[in-house]
Amino acid sequence: MADTHSLEALVQALRRLPGVGIKSAQRMAFHLLQHDREGAQFLAQALQQAASQVCHCSLCHTFTEQDVCATCADARRDRSKLCVVETPADQSAVERTAAYRGLYFVLMGKLSPLDGIGPRDIGLQKLFDRATDGTVHEVILATNFTAEGEATAHVIGEALRARGLRVTRLARGVPAGSELEYVDLGTIAHALVDRR
Amino acid sequence: MADTHSLEALVQALRRLPGVGIKSAQRMAFHLLQHDREGAQFLAQALQQAASQVCHCSLCHTFTEQDVCATCADARRDRSKLCVVETPADQSAVERTAAYRGLYFVLMGKLSPLDGIGPRDIGLQKLFDRATDGTVHEVILATNFTAEGEATAHVIGEALRARGLRVTRLARGVPAGSELEYVDLGTIAHALVDRR
Repeated sequence: MADTHSLEALVQALRRLPGVGIKSAQRMAFHLLQHDREGAQFLAQALQQAASQVCHCSLCHTFTEQDVCATCADARRDRSKLCVVETPADQSAVERTAAYRGLYFVLMGKLSPLDGIGPRDIGLQKLFDRATDGTVHEVILATNFTAEGEATAHVIGEALRARGLRVTRLARGVPAGSELEYVDLGTIAHALVDRR
Repeated sequence: MADTHSLEALVQALRRLPGVGIKSAQRMAFHLLQHDREGAQFLAQALQQAASQVCHCSLCHTFTEQDVCATCADARRDRSKLCVVETPADQSAVERTAAYRGLYFVLMGKLSPLDGIGPRDIGLQKLFDRATDGTVHEVILATNFTAEGEATAHVIGEALRARGLRVTRLARGVPAGSELEYVDLGTIAHALVDRR
C-alpha cells in the first residue's frame, strides 16, 4: 500500500488517540473509508470546531466555549461551596447525583510526580486564589480515591487548611447495593473507621 | 456542560468509530482538548484528506489514491496468480510473508447474509470478470478461516471452478511454533486430513 499516503497518515493520526494501537487504528480507518465517509467528514469538522472553540472557564477551569461556564454563571448555585474534581467527567458524575448545588473547580488532571505533573500543571495557584476570595466557606475534595487522587487531595487540603478554610473530603465507605462479602478489605476498614 | 456544544459534538462523532463507546469517546475528547490539540488538528486534516483522496483500485478493489494501485501496476508481479483476501490488512499480512509474488483481489468485506451483505456488496461480479480475463491461471482463496470467511471462499470457489479455473485455498493446519497440546481439536483434525 505504498501509494496510499493519506491512508497511512490517517492511521498514524488515529494512533494518537488514547487506547488506540496500530490494529485498532487500521480497523477504524478501514471502517470510516469503506462504510462511513460521512462519519469521517463529520468527525473532522467536530475536531476542528472543538479544537478552535473550546477553552477553559476563567473561574473553574473546566471546558467551555464562553469566558465563564454555565455552571459558574448560574446565579442559583451556592457560592459558598467549592467542589474540587479531577476532570469534567468527574464533575458531571457529581452533577448527576443532584445532591450538590455549589460550584466546582476542575483540576483537569492530578498531581503525578512520576509523570512530571506538579502543582503548576494542574493550576493549584488558581484554585488557592479562588478558594480564598472570601465567598467560599467550604472546599469539598472530590478527587478520585486512587493513590494520585488521594495525594492531590492531601496537598490541596493541607494548603487550604493553612489558609484557614474548612476542607472536607468525600466519604469513603461501602458502595450502595454491595454485599460485604465481595467488598475489598481496605474499603471495609475505612467504612469501620468512618462509621457514624 | 450545557454550553459546550462543540465538545458534545466531538464526543458523538468519536462514538461513530468502531469499538468506541461513550466513556472512551469522552476520554479521547478530553485527551485531545487538554493535552493534544495539535493531534486533533492533525487528525481532522488526515480524515478530510483520506475521505476525499482514497478511492478503490479499478483492478483489485483495494484502497488507493490512483486509478490502479501500486501492486497491480507493478510489472514484476506474476499476473497468472490472483489471491483473494477480505481486507487491505489481510493483503498486507500476506505481503509481509514475502512468499507470494502474484496479484490480489480485495473483497473489502465478506459474505454475511445475517448482516444483509450479499455477492453484490463485495463486488463478486468484478472478481469473476477479473479472474476470467485470460491472464489468470490460479485463484488462491485467502479469506479468513471464520464461518463467514469459509462461506465466502466456498461461494467464490464454486463459481470460479464452474468457469474452468484452478482454485486453491490456504492450507489449514497447526500454526508454526505451537505445541499440539494447546492447539484446538478442529485444527489438529484438519492438519491430519490435509497431511502431506
